[in-house]
Amino acid sequence: MSAIPERLLRDTAEVDKGSIQPYPNSRKIYVQGSRPDIRVPMREIILTDTHSEAGKEHNPPLTVYDTSGPYTDPDVTIDIRKGLPHIRSTWLDERGDTERLPEHSSEYGRRRAADRELDGLRFAHCNPRPRRARPGRNVTQMHYARQGIVTPEMEFVAIRENLRLELYREQLASQHRGASLGATIPEIVTPEFVRDEIARGRAVIPANINHPELEPMIIGRNFLVKINGNLGNSALASSIEEEVAKMTWGIRWGSDTIMDLSTGKNIHETREWIIRNSPVPIGTVPIYQALEKVGGKAEDLSWELFRDTLIEQAEQGVDYFTIHAGVLLRHIPLTAQRVTGIVSRGGSIMAKWCLAHHQENFLYTHFEEICDIMKSYDVTFSLGDGLRPGCIADANDAAQFGELEVLGELTKIAWKHDVQTIIEGPGHVPMHLIRENMEKQLECCDEAPFYTLGPLTTDIAPGYDHITSAIGAAMIGWYGCAMLCYVTPKEHLGLPNRDDVKEGIIAYKIAAHAADLAKGHPGAQIRDDAMSKARFEFRWEDQFAIGLDPDRAREYHDETLPQDAHKVAHFCSMCGPAFCSMKITREVREYARRQGISEQEALQRGMEEKAVEFVKQGADLYRKA
Amino acid sequence: MSAIPERLLRDTAEVDKGSIQPYPNSRKIYVQGSRPDIRVPMREIILTDTHSEAGKEHNPPLTVYDTSGPYTDPDVTIDIRKGLPHIRSTWLDERGDTERLPEHSSEYGRRRAADRELDGLRFAHCNPRPRRARPGRNVTQMHYARQGIVTPEMEFVAIRENLRLELYREQLASQHRGASLGATIPEIVTPEFVRDEIARGRAVIPANINHPELEPMIIGRNFLVKINGNLGNSALASSIEEEVAKMTWGIRWGSDTIMDLSTGKNIHETREWIIRNSPVPIGTVPIYQALEKVGGKAEDLSWELFRDTLIEQAEQGVDYFTIHAGVLLRHIPLTAQRVTGIVSRGGSIMAKWCLAHHQENFLYTHFEEICDIMKSYDVTFSLGDGLRPGCIADANDAAQFGELEVLGELTKIAWKHDVQTIIEGPGHVPMHLIRENMEKQLECCDEAPFYTLGPLTTDIAPGYDHITSAIGAAMIGWYGCAMLCYVTPKEHLGLPNRDDVKEGIIAYKIAAHAADLAKGHPGAQIRDDAMSKARFEFRWEDQFAIGLDPDRAREYHDETLPQDAHKVAHFCSMCGPAFCSMKITREVREYARRQGISEQEALQRGMEEKAVEFVKQGADLYRKA
Repeated sequence: MSAIPERLLRDTAEVDKGSIQPYPNSRKIYVQGSRPDIRVPMREIILTDTHSEAGKEHNPPLTVYDTSGPYTDPDVTIDIRKGLPHIRSTWLDERGDTERLPEHSSEYGRRRAADRELDGLRFAHCNPRPRRARPGRNVTQMHYARQGIVTPEMEFVAIRENLRLELYREQLASQHRGASLGATIPEIVTPEFVRDEIARGRAVIPANINHPELEPMIIGRNFLVKINGNLGNSALASSIEEEVAKMTWGIRWGSDTIMDLSTGKNIHETREWIIRNSPVPIGTVPIYQALEKVGGKAEDLSWELFRDTLIEQAEQGVDYFTIHAGVLLRHIPLTAQRVTGIVSRGGSIMAKWCLAHHQENFLYTHFEEICDIMKSYDVTFSLGDGLRPGCIADANDAAQFGELEVLGELTKIAWKHDVQTIIEGPGHVPMHLIRENMEKQLECCDEAPFYTLGPLTTDIAPGYDHITSAIGAAMIGWYGCAMLCYVTPKEHLGLPNRDDVKEGIIAYKIAAHAADLAKGHPGAQIRDDAMSKARFEFRWEDQFAIGLDPDRAREYHDETLPQDAHKVAHFCSMCGPAFCSMKITREVREYARRQGISEQEALQRGMEEKAVEFVKQGADLYRKA
Repeated sequence: MSAIPERLLRDTAEVDKGSIQPYPNSRKIYVQGSRPDIRVPMREIILTDTHSEAGKEHNPPLTVYDTSGPYTDPDVTIDIRKGLPHIRSTWLDERGDTERLPEHSSEYGRRRAADRELDGLRFAHCNPRPRRARPGRNVTQMHYARQGIVTPEMEFVAIRENLRLELYREQLASQHRGASLGATIPEIVTPEFVRDEIARGRAVIPANINHPELEPMIIGRNFLVKINGNLGNSALASSIEEEVAKMTWGIRWGSDTIMDLSTGKNIHETREWIIRNSPVPIGTVPIYQALEKVGGKAEDLSWELFRDTLIEQAEQGVDYFTIHAGVLLRHIPLTAQRVTGIVSRGGSIMAKWCLAHHQENFLYTHFEEICDIMKSYDVTFSLGDGLRPGCIADANDAAQFGELEVLGELTKIAWKHDVQTIIEGPGHVPMHLIRENMEKQLECCDEAPFYTLGPLTTDIAPGYDHITSAIGAAMIGWYGCAMLCYVTPKEHLGLPNRDDVKEGIIAYKIAAHAADLAKGHPGAQIRDDAMSKARFEFRWEDQFAIGLDPDRAREYHDETLPQDAHKVAHFCSMCGPAFCSMKITREVREYARRQGISEQEALQRGMEEKAVEFVKQGADLYRKA
């Protein structure tokens, strides 16, 4: 827990120092769109030249996706007490379909705002007048898309997905191109393609109108695979400042969205700090906070309380809500014989409520009312899988798939309201049952984006579930899962700390990138090729900079070869200077070059005969040692 | 590097303390075969009882595969200066087809033995009279198998693979059963099935007659997926004692075989220490030592020198040799345009030799002579993939597959001599190209066991290649790869230390077990189910003991809930006491139990109607908060 008393947070909170270091050998660039205020952030990695006997070769800079927001831009002054700049306000104003409310509509939100005891804790620049759709208006990106409108958000994500691919055209020809289950990944992502995918429901841009700090991103299987990092306090541990640090730290390493799963104290205030400082979409599970409001007693929950919680969070700017509306009474008996029953917190809360009241899940019965709220703020549904399997034994069972079918029905209702929707998925699934999950989700939910937690491919490795699940995540990402919710090494054991957040994020960046390669994203391999070329040429500094974690790569290298001289050494510690396969290969190439092309041709044409000849002549031809 | 001067090693060497701790809540058991000296080691994990309102439930002990050898048996006194007991000597003597040589046959071996300067370093109990097949005899397990003989080694591995499955019959009915590419995994592994698989070439028991300390194990796709851990010094780092510690530490965490890839000083002596203390098969790449003998100049290698090295190592007891006999002159030009050329050390050495001499690879031209050596000691071939891809860009290319076809030809030659053979595979392969590797290997090599390094599914994560590769390893294991060569977090950056060895091993135990689940090994899921049940019942100590790494699981749990009282707490730090889905599920079950069976039936039968009814009645039915 933090050493800083929470009461002093408003005046003393500081950004996590590790989160604002510029990336090594990199510069922050902004690619401008059709108007000056569409400035899409990317990271450009500057590579060194290759020096060989053939002369100097220039290696072009590498463009990589950048989720870190202004934190890694040395030109931006960061003050987490003030929050990030509002890059979307003009876009929102221009659309003219929202209004500023005189005050927060949520009763609970107003109560918290009026509580003077919270002053020391509260983010100082809360927006007192949140936006909401004007009466009768629908402000979702899906609604615009279906009307044929390309929003600045759509153009932003189109540019972002392309990663300046036009600079790398020459390198694409020789690259592998994978394929996924029916995905149709374009050569170039256009704003019109984005609009069409969103209109079709195959992609979402989670972008609450009360989150103007957001750098828009897209989730859909015809786009780069995204990852989510969870954070959040519990009744037992952690402070607001720690949670903000986990967010900035998580996006530094590549988290595309962040879910705030707080279940402890001051959930409302924690969330405000996180959203105001977050350039990525923030998701929540509103039932967690609702449960806190009734002292942890599921049976005391009500629709009215939940509704107020949705509005409270929507007016703070939460971009997507996990809603466990698919857990129905008829499913509950299906879980009784499971090895681990119901492991989703939201699922178990709703199951308990249903049984206590002998009534159907109020999230299901009030689903259309929830849609009305979602479309007033453009909050995206993340339809929760409250009955996801909690172990290998329970994978792909009747409870899980029964709920998935209901989520499919709900997707259609959400789409009727033009509410953006993604579907949550498991969990724990052995490898041979993963594909069935993806196929069934595509079928039941009509290609709405899938968003899975792992899945973990075995239960037996507590302490390493970032790995058990990265295996499943990579596979389901390849099959078409649009976003992968990370799992940290602390899964099943404790709350992740800052280090665990990083371990989880990196494992999931690996899974997502492996999936991008296998799905056939044009240009996905450019970063791999840049790394491999740097590796072959012993450009160590470039290897560090290109990798997902430059700090660790450098640290590991330096453990055995710490001197700076070794950063340009044409060998590494694994084999030592006299015994390096890459060095030998370069010698082989050099040798071949000196022999000229005719030598190569001779090798290619004549060697099979030559081999036979040598076999016949036998051992006495060979030089003695 | 070790603080102990190497000269004093013989007198002062001590076993790694971490390697001889008994596993928590576990006992070492030995399952006896058809004769008293077939004693197959296993680990039995003792589980605590379940306490619930329904009363006390006994949880049967869990049997798990145990690679750790005598080190974890508290009844055995360990002294690495003396080596392990010779459990196979009687079996070898009984066969009557070997003889004790008057001295080592290798000139180099004799020279090292005679060098008084090495006395302080040398393992004190080297065998001065190694075994070799009597003239005209063939002592391979394959040879016996083809003659219909079931050896004690075969019976040993049959018992080992079964893991006392007969005790768990009841639990099998409800478990998932996966499937692999054409694998035919039996319900019970019999000695006869083992014999048949070995005779067919589909499995191997690497078991040199000069490694009597060995606890036999089997590698083949109809058996449990195995993993290999590499160790070895280089010119730049590490001592013999450190390497022995890596071996004992690696097998503690589950390494089924160990490859000693030393390329630095005192390779011969290092290997002796390792083999004499190893209960698992030891593999080597003899060309590494041969190259050291010629001062690192590949062009100075010769068949005679290499042959002497093979005999030197065979008489020490190396169980399998990586032989890069598939790198042919005609392949070399195919690598010239690769991004990373030839990355296998053995492959690049042979390529350089071929080009320097304008001659075909002497490992290829002398292959039958090598077979003669292999069958005189029962050394298993691991046919090396000298042209494996070193990056995503080079995966599945003409050089790689050209070599694989040659390895297929060589397999048939080896089999003609009844020499056991496995085939090495890549490397770096994007997910969508992994399956092709397995299919092509099965086809080219007529189902000889495949043994791959990963493969890494992306190049961009130095520092995390245990994860990039565990993804590929799990997948290819599922497809039928018989053994997975681990990759540590230091891959591409430095030599693994003791911690890295453990990280690599655990990542690969995960991959192998995930593959066993997906391949459909009967009983593979028993350990997962035991873990999940313990998890659901908050039996924390049992969770720690069942997991692949009890120490880390406990450490992570204790970071937030350190007190002993929390080891029996019915909650964990993720959600806290009032907010736990597992707790709620148990309450749901309890509630259902109190309502009696009729309640359950009512739920099952009537809920769809009930749900509709509630939807119609609407929100006013619900309790207010």
